[in-house]
Amino acid sequence: MRDEIMREELKEECGVFGIVSREGRASRTTYYGLFALQHRGQESAGIAVSEDGDIHLHKAMGLVGEVFDDAKLEELKGDLAVGHVRYSTSGDSSVINAQPLVFKTRQGTIALCHNGNLANSLALRESLKEKGSIFQTTVDTEVIAALLAGSSDSDLVISIRSVMKELKGAYALIIMTRDRLIGVRDPLGIRPLCIGRKEKDLMLSSESCAFETVGGSLLRDVMPGEIVVIDRSGMKSYPPEEKNEEKLCIFEFIYFGRPDSVMKGQSLYMSRKRAGKILCREVPADADFVCSVPDSGTPSAIGFSEASGIPFLEGLVKNRYVGRTFIKPSQNQREIGVALKLNVLEEVVRGKSIVLVDDSIVRGTTIKRLISRLRACGAGKIHLRISAPPVMWPCFFGIDTPSRDELLGARFSVEEIGRLVGADSIGYLSLEGLIEATSSSGFCTGCFSGQYPLDIEGADGRYALDTAQKVRT
Amino acid sequence: MRDEIMREELKEECGVFGIVSREGRASRTTYYGLFALQHRGQESAGIAVSEDGDIHLHKAMGLVGEVFDDAKLEELKGDLAVGHVRYSTSGDSSVINAQPLVFKTRQGTIALCHNGNLANSLALRESLKEKGSIFQTTVDTEVIAALLAGSSDSDLVISIRSVMKELKGAYALIIMTRDRLIGVRDPLGIRPLCIGRKEKDLMLSSESCAFETVGGSLLRDVMPGEIVVIDRSGMKSYPPEEKNEEKLCIFEFIYFGRPDSVMKGQSLYMSRKRAGKILCREVPADADFVCSVPDSGTPSAIGFSEASGIPFLEGLVKNRYVGRTFIKPSQNQREIGVALKLNVLEEVVRGKSIVLVDDSIVRGTTIKRLISRLRACGAGKIHLRISAPPVMWPCFFGIDTPSRDELLGARFSVEEIGRLVGADSIGYLSLEGLIEATSSSGFCTGCFSGQYPLDIEGADGRYALDTAQKVRT
Amino acid sequence: MRDEIMREELKEECGVFGIVSREGRASRTTYYGLFALQHRGQESAGIAVSEDGDIHLHKAMGLVGEVFDDAKLEELKGDLAVGHVRYSTSGDSSVINAQPLVFKTRQGTIALCHNGNLANSLALRESLKEKGSIFQTTVDTEVIAALLAGSSDSDLVISIRSVMKELKGAYALIIMTRDRLIGVRDPLGIRPLCIGRKEKDLMLSSESCAFETVGGSLLRDVMPGEIVVIDRSGMKSYPPEEKNEEKLCIFEFIYFGRPDSVMKGQSLYMSRKRAGKILCREVPADADFVCSVPDSGTPSAIGFSEASGIPFLEGLVKNRYVGRTFIKPSQNQREIGVALKLNVLEEVVRGKSIVLVDDSIVRGTTIKRLISRLRACGAGKIHLRISAPPVMWPCFFGIDTPSRDELLGARFSVEEIGRLVGADSIGYLSLEGLIEATSSSGFCTGCFSGQYPLDIEGADGRYALDTAQKVRT
Amino acid sequence: MRDEIMREELKEECGVFGIVSREGRASRTTYYGLFALQHRGQESAGIAVSEDGDIHLHKAMGLVGEVFDDAKLEELKGDLAVGHVRYSTSGDSSVINAQPLVFKTRQGTIALCHNGNLANSLALRESLKEKGSIFQTTVDTEVIAALLAGSSDSDLVISIRSVMKELKGAYALIIMTRDRLIGVRDPLGIRPLCIGRKEKDLMLSSESCAFETVGGSLLRDVMPGEIVVIDRSGMKSYPPEEKNEEKLCIFEFIYFGRPDSVMKGQSLYMSRKRAGKILCREVPADADFVCSVPDSGTPSAIGFSEASGIPFLEGLVKNRYVGRTFIKPSQNQREIGVALKLNVLEEVVRGKSIVLVDDSIVRGTTIKRLISRLRACGAGKIHLRISAPPVMWPCFFGIDTPSRDELLGARFSVEEIGRLVGADSIGYLSLEGLIEATSSSGFCTGCFSGQYPLDIEGADGRYALDTAQKVRT
Repeated sequence: MRDEIMREELKEECGVFGIVSREGRASRTTYYGLFALQHRGQESAGIAVSEDGDIHLHKAMGLVGEVFDDAKLEELKGDLAVGHVRYSTSGDSSVINAQPLVFKTRQGTIALCHNGNLANSLALRESLKEKGSIFQTTVDTEVIAALLAGSSDSDLVISIRSVMKELKGAYALIIMTRDRLIGVRDPLGIRPLCIGRKEKDLMLSSESCAFETVGGSLLRDVMPGEIVVIDRSGMKSYPPEEKNEEKLCIFEFIYFGRPDSVMKGQSLYMSRKRAGKILCREVPADADFVCSVPDSGTPSAIGFSEASGIPFLEGLVKNRYVGRTFIKPSQNQREIGVALKLNVLEEVVRGKSIVLVDDSIVRGTTIKRLISRLRACGAGKIHLRISAPPVMWPCFFGIDTPSRDELLGARFSVEEIGRLVGADSIGYLSLEGLIEATSSSGFCTGCFSGQYPLDIEGADGRYALDTAQKVRT
Repeated sequence: MRDEIMREELKEECGVFGIVSREGRASRTTYYGLFALQHRGQESAGIAVSEDGDIHLHKAMGLVGEVFDDAKLEELKGDLAVGHVRYSTSGDSSVINAQPLVFKTRQGTIALCHNGNLANSLALRESLKEKGSIFQTTVDTEVIAALLAGSSDSDLVISIRSVMKELKGAYALIIMTRDRLIGVRDPLGIRPLCIGRKEKDLMLSSESCAFETVGGSLLRDVMPGEIVVIDRSGMKSYPPEEKNEEKLCIFEFIYFGRPDSVMKGQSLYMSRKRAGKILCREVPADADFVCSVPDSGTPSAIGFSEASGIPFLEGLVKNRYVGRTFIKPSQNQREIGVALKLNVLEEVVRGKSIVLVDDSIVRGTTIKRLISRLRACGAGKIHLRISAPPVMWPCFFGIDTPSRDELLGARFSVEEIGRLVGADSIGYLSLEGLIEATSSSGFCTGCFSGQYPLDIEGADGRYALDTAQKVRT
Repeated sequence: MRDEIMREELKEECGVFGIVSREGRASRTTYYGLFALQHRGQESAGIAVSEDGDIHLHKAMGLVGEVFDDAKLEELKGDLAVGHVRYSTSGDSSVINAQPLVFKTRQGTIALCHNGNLANSLALRESLKEKGSIFQTTVDTEVIAALLAGSSDSDLVISIRSVMKELKGAYALIIMTRDRLIGVRDPLGIRPLCIGRKEKDLMLSSESCAFETVGGSLLRDVMPGEIVVIDRSGMKSYPPEEKNEEKLCIFEFIYFGRPDSVMKGQSLYMSRKRAGKILCREVPADADFVCSVPDSGTPSAIGFSEASGIPFLEGLVKNRYVGRTFIKPSQNQREIGVALKLNVLEEVVRGKSIVLVDDSIVRGTTIKRLISRLRACGAGKIHLRISAPPVMWPCFFGIDTPSRDELLGARFSVEEIGRLVGADSIGYLSLEGLIEATSSSGFCTGCFSGQYPLDIEGADGRYALDTAQKVRT
Repeated sequence: MRDEIMREELKEECGVFGIVSREGRASRTTYYGLFALQHRGQESAGIAVSEDGDIHLHKAMGLVGEVFDDAKLEELKGDLAVGHVRYSTSGDSSVINAQPLVFKTRQGTIALCHNGNLANSLALRESLKEKGSIFQTTVDTEVIAALLAGSSDSDLVISIRSVMKELKGAYALIIMTRDRLIGVRDPLGIRPLCIGRKEKDLMLSSESCAFETVGGSLLRDVMPGEIVVIDRSGMKSYPPEEKNEEKLCIFEFIYFGRPDSVMKGQSLYMSRKRAGKILCREVPADADFVCSVPDSGTPSAIGFSEASGIPFLEGLVKNRYVGRTFIKPSQNQREIGVALKLNVLEEVVRGKSIVLVDDSIVRGTTIKRLISRLRACGAGKIHLRISAPPVMWPCFFGIDTPSRDELLGARFSVEEIGRLVGADSIGYLSLEGLIEATSSSGFCTGCFSGQYPLDIEGADGRYALDTAQKVRT
């Protein structure tokens, strides 16, 4: 689960959902599907539907529940729909960049939804511009559309296959034409995309939790490099010509994915709980109780508790009503920032030693303040345990990481970090332990290891891949 | 914590907060204080400040974070402030009823905030109208103001004392004049009100969690029947002439109050955890794990786990982004309602027997659907345990209870309820057990026992005390 | 017609409209009636309806077309309706002061709409507060309601008659009860109120233009001091016990009333045209053409043209799209203010001498800039003619006049004014001429003569009658 | 001036404005310039500025005064600005189609504003799509941008010149690059565009009235086919290689252009007045007075009055506050539609014969109702005179004409039209008379004559040039 105030650090880019519906209520199901994916993006939301060959679109800034009302959904008739949620950055947050994007091309009108980040986006844009393309947004989706439109093949699947050869990076796409829904996942499968079913209807989604929310169930993941075409008659798969090992972003398992989603056949909740158990094995600690930073640290904390036999208690309580917007406390009210969101249960922590479990440390400012508040409430020893390795490298594939200068893990040793945040002891899960916890394999672990699954040209020197030539709108 | 979708059942009326600030940033502190009380009302929010004798007011429909922005707060200058959050009902939800209400009276201009419900509101209105009063709202606050203004005494405290003799019911009031903040709690102390301090500043609040959020701490509860006057020089207490036993609404301990608040010197969190332990003692159950209906059932579930030795696991995951507004699923999408809000962690529950802990059952529709989903995900035996007695009677003192026809506890035996919601076994905490869990005494338990601390004329026949003669606005 | 930018000077307070409808579409007719009265107030709009004894209300800040939509009107069912438009001042402009105000009193629920100003409002408020009344708004309407509620008579008409004895000032009221519409005009008839009919339906309105807009016609003016009661069975008149000479605000004839309205049996348009003719007779001028400051100066300019034989031409063109809100030009763009609103037709004015006709000069800033622009466009001699006498005194009865310090007419002789605004010659219509133009008699001419129809205590020293003790909201 | 309710008939497409400012307050001047052009489009408004090479944009649905506030303008820093207003149609009215459009191309980032209509838009789109272009809007502006981006020349002026060879139709363009403002007018000059100056700043605008509004003045029209480049050092003109006769849309003279604008060196006001004089010469009429349909018929009515010696009077009064949105009267309230907007001055018209002057008849519904209301108010003979010829043909160059089936002039003879609308006599100005009135030559008169200045392929059969393949958004 996402925590906007405290965790303005690692952010997913987007969530996508699509359906071909026999009932013809495609937009309504997509609406509920996007609700289930809201944790993947709270900036803007949009749905496009196809009705008798016409594509209708509504999108706006805001949460799904704010962008759509009953009247808007009623206008979006049609049995094919595709929807998108996008996350809120300060920079080029604008309705012009909201998705789906709808393009009229020689292949007809298509709606595109994209989750991911192209590493060679800038080079592709420049090359397309040289050939006469014009760009109205700053999102990669438009680059992909321009490449598709430039393909001379009349078969859209062949065009997609040929465009995929040019794309370098992470992309989970849903493309809607007048009569088909096409799911595409990059050859390394860096971003997730899966197929679901509700009775006879087939769906695509970033995460399986959306299928259950709308009353359906997960069928399977889209394979890396696979193209999946869904129409009214069923589904057809176009596997990649050359099969790569999957390199799913491991942060989907750690933090991004909803705990009730399943990826690679594994429950993310169970994987996080196992991570807590292994964490206990690797860096054990003794204390009066185990406590989590809610909500994302809780599954691992419960796992740690199970493995250690130390009881799990709630020592921090979250204010469920702190929304996206609130007025920043002034300098002399700095402590309010964390307190608005999380409060310490003094009666629980007073005089007690604690194993405090969180899923990651990025800049470290929040955990530092939390520990200081715990101390103020009379907590004894605080043993900080993180259910993932230190984040040391930036992400090039769709996660909003700070620069290395701000990454605590890149600048300090584990011991130094412990001292900096004020913990009595500190322990991170090893990368091996994390992989073990997933009960799986095939991950991009670039942010921990610096080993990226794709060659990043000029890598370290180009964190901000798409910051040049921005039109702020 | 409140859960709008699933729990459209028992609702608190309001939250109040006030401060006399040396810094002069009274509105800003009130803003953060109201954030911490947001669980007590999401319909409207308002703040009034006193600046050099002028009272300035801003209030509107919406959450605190929506009603105020930086510019609005800047305009609300002054070193005294009082704020209010109100809950959303369908009926007379209107900005005209939003609080604080500001009145010009012979005693000068006063701002009033009220949490509670007068049982004799209708009779008082009629009698005031006979004397020539006019009413523009449907809230009790206006009745109280009219009574105050009708008092001939020039000393506001004496006027309040004399008005209190006429009021019958629950009221926690904060009254702001040009230079004073006056806290008033009804003689039975049915609704909570407490005093806090932040350095030299004194505050009043419905709950102590607001004090910690703004960086202060709890001093003490306002006593039943006490009048507390705070001005720039300090605080003065006017105890009741005749001391009654306190009759605090016990639902504050069970559900309304935030777990990190302290009432009667007791941590609500610890009390709820103890309730879980006693629940285990009174109606034990054996299962593979203990699971809560998040978030409100969690402390008791952890207590049950601790007492029974059965591990606590999360079997249900909550969607944090389902806000106040979403489009109602249509008839054939009924199952979506609960699924939008809560999803089952199939891997956790499949093949496992469960002790499922919740804090109360009102209409029973939500728990019934949840159990049905757990079954669909392969759960084994489900032992439902409720950390409070059956709700059998309506509330007359500020809680929005359904009519007895809709109260499951009023219509069926415990065994019947268990069968109706589909549980394999069911157990409620006894009233004695609940009182024991509070480590305290002096409660209104009318909704469980039908024993009200005040004589309710015509009681059973008059659930809707203030529905007559409404002006819908 | 009103001209917000240039004429931020004399402003009407309000417009009122009411209907008892056989068709039961009372709110819809009221909506269109308020559209026709929009020139009397653009700040807020509201409609209250009576349906089977319930009074429903909707009001908000904004123009009629912004405040209501189809859904809102649909909700306002009922066969009695009363509506109000209010004008925008900077001070206490707030939805709390928007009308109709709805009061629950011992006489039942009543909705009140008021146009006018009580000269003894402050004294009445103080006296009511002494008796225990509370006030939530800063409008006189609430004072009138409090007086009505304080009357012990069960017959509302008798109560109104007795309250009228206490009111001193201007008031045109429409009071709606569950089954009656009551029109009241002050004993001097300072503000207008008239009765109209559409088939069998009877209506009340500030001006007759509203009757024609909804497809009906004017029946007659409500007489000064008369009370008119309309119910489903027809109309009943309660004439004043003692008959006063009418003292209608003469500015209704000059500027406030819409030209297509009829008052005292006279067309306002024809009266303004006659004023132009008499103006020509009293202060003739020779020029190439007669030109008006549009739109309010046009009827008199046409009259001047007719009397003088000098052709009427448009020399100034108005931007119809400059609405209520626009960003104020900065200091070095001062000239833009007038230019946004009015532009000179250079080809018409170049090298020509002009008789420039306007209806009044208050502060003189606009006419000064206009003359300066005319000069810049090559105009020759400019003979300024004003179709009313100089405004020399403040109004105490509902018109927003500046203080005498800012009234050009109070500070300078006519010749000085001509020089100050840059005219080659200047001429005002005499008060006798103005009265002659109305083809009528019985006016308040206080702003020209300083002779008020009511004794104004402390007069000159108390311009701001209701500025004390304001609660800004 | 535009009259939305009565004249939902002929509509201009857009207005454009641009400035290179020494002061650096480019967006602010553009804001006021757009205010002056608001009559050319009320659907959406937008401004783009160039600041140190970055282009910032704000646009939204609504009037200029609604779209921008002080804060928004402050954010739009930069010394170059271009702005646009667009008119409101029901179909593809959407913020996606609002202008300026900003494109990133190989020539850098450019902002485009367009007024006009390409006759070969569909063919160009198809051909561009064949080459791989994608389209996100339904406006011609995007087609022009795609063509520009496809040009291989590095000099933007040369690119524009070569793109102009492909464009067929009407276009007045303002293109903003990082350091230049480029004005382009189609080779026939169908839509207007002119150059203005304010001190050292140079501006471009659809009409000269915008220059005067911002305190500047008209320099000259952009010539047909001319490209004008303005940068911080001054202006450079690129005349067309081959000079065509200008074919300015004659409706700019009749109705679209603001009367205070100057085109072809002629005052539109004077031209309209002359049209009235010639109308009197061609189809004289005798009556008690001449009256116009305000506001657009007034200059011609004054001209008719001058030529005939029959006095000009106002017989109809306009409600200045009927804005863009109001609730449609129901069937049995049909008469309210016209009455809301225009009311008859009964005292003026009763018993009088009238020469009623309007500028055009399109569908005829409004004039028919007006005449019927005049009759109901007792008017005698009504001689309808139209200061332009009958509109008989659709426009292909940017004016929203109804289909020929709905054009009264296309279906009936002049005498029949007179009978249909209820006039006692009817007379239209001849095309020769109209041209004479302009004191000029070089017009597109296609809507009167069916003679279009460009070959329209498939003409009569293709009224809706851009209705295919629309994405409603």
